[in-house]
Amino acid sequence: MSWHATILTLFPEMFPGPLDVSLAGRALRDGKWRCEAMDIRGFATDRHRTVDDTPFGGGAGMVMRPDVADAAIAGAMAGGETEGDTRPLIYLTPRGRLLDQAMVRDFAAGPGLVLLCGRYEGVDQRVIEARGMREISLGDYVLSGGEIAALALLDACVRLLPGVMGAAESAVEESHSAGLLEYPHYTRPAEWQGRAVPPVLLSGHHAEVDRWRRAQSEAVTRERRPDLWNRMQVAGAQAPA
Amino acid sequence: MSWHATILTLFPEMFPGPLDVSLAGRALRDGKWRCEAMDIRGFATDRHRTVDDTPFGGGAGMVMRPDVADAAIAGAMAGGETEGDTRPLIYLTPRGRLLDQAMVRDFAAGPGLVLLCGRYEGVDQRVIEARGMREISLGDYVLSGGEIAALALLDACVRLLPGVMGAAESAVEESHSAGLLEYPHYTRPAEWQGRAVPPVLLSGHHAEVDRWRRAQSEAVTRERRPDLWNRMQVAGAQAPA
Repeated sequence: MSWHATILTLFPEMFPGPLDVSLAGRALRDGKWRCEAMDIRGFATDRHRTVDDTPFGGGAGMVMRPDVADAAIAGAMAGGETEGDTRPLIYLTPRGRLLDQAMVRDFAAGPGLVLLCGRYEGVDQRVIEARGMREISLGDYVLSGGEIAALALLDACVRLLPGVMGAAESAVEESHSAGLLEYPHYTRPAEWQGRAVPPVLLSGHHAEVDRWRRAQSEAVTRERRPDLWNRMQVAGAQAPA
Repeated sequence: MSWHATILTLFPEMFPGPLDVSLAGRALRDGKWRCEAMDIRGFATDRHRTVDDTPFGGGAGMVMRPDVADAAIAGAMAGGETEGDTRPLIYLTPRGRLLDQAMVRDFAAGPGLVLLCGRYEGVDQRVIEARGMREISLGDYVLSGGEIAALALLDACVRLLPGVMGAAESAVEESHSAGLLEYPHYTRPAEWQGRAVPPVLLSGHHAEVDRWRRAQSEAVTRERRPDLWNRMQVAGAQAPA
């Protein structure tokens, strides 16, 4: 059974979309994962196919009804598996915990994901609680819906599936595994517009190259991501000597 | 002149992709923004259309050549504008500063963006420096390339362009403007699967609803995002009394 993504969305035509191209697209055609988008509107029960309503307590925007979202989730879980569907159920929202590479690795190691994409103000909180959904956020910015967040999460997972990445793609995430940003990269030509490649990279001294790259990683992490840097210092201080 | 996005990519067929649907798609058809994807490979100069080469200093993966990336950027900046192109030039990479809603607002208020999407290990650092590119990251996870990151960034910007959001979409980002995660939402039915909507939301007391929502926002922020919570406490402590 290949890794199985089901996306619940009001815009199923967005999937697989960019995931049908390049690395993820090749893996899709090779059967290394499956991608299935289901239209939430198909689970509405009135003749207008209503999926949302105004928020209790007032305020702008519309909220997705719990009964419709719940029926869509039931439809997603029933589809495909004969035994119980053990895939994590995820609601993509800026209210969620921040996605990180450790979560991505966990998800990629599992059977797949069921992703609920919100639109408008969000989804009724009761269905999130009743279904024990994990609320996950890509970052501190607001998208027009969960669909592009779903594409990002799936792309991050699919590249880690067995046999998906070749040598050309390599495993770039050492960067985030080590808790540091990556060092800068250089390739031919060795001199370009009067700018030379750092000489140490042409020296052939592997240990010096490694030392230089480590120093560069530390410098860029300190400068751009003091949060990561401080976390690493704390983790280092707590590690047994 | 409408807001103008140019994407430099090895996979131009990924654009506008999901941005041709829903809110962003309607805005695209209404001329509220323009989206143009250019194939980096078209700027290669050898007959194999080579865009990348092995990294100096060794290691896995391939690095995009500075001369090819530079020619592509020159092509993007020349296209369209008659005067100097003042759009920010962005390279999407996990080495970058974290995208946040304040950056999104800045970008949406400007003339548009030129986005360079990396693949493989990355882009030669010299072209990033020579062109003064801003390196931006969606978050601490690794995508197979910059394309889906570009879709996310563009989606976040486009929804803020004048006239793009209607009442149904509303301005959800109050959440991140206030430095707190959003409170939970509820809609009809008032009782669902034995779960009732919090009574205060049905009370009609606007001040109590506001107080409850504020308390919920604070609680979820403390629980899920201690980083945001601490930042807000510090900011609050520093504000004049």
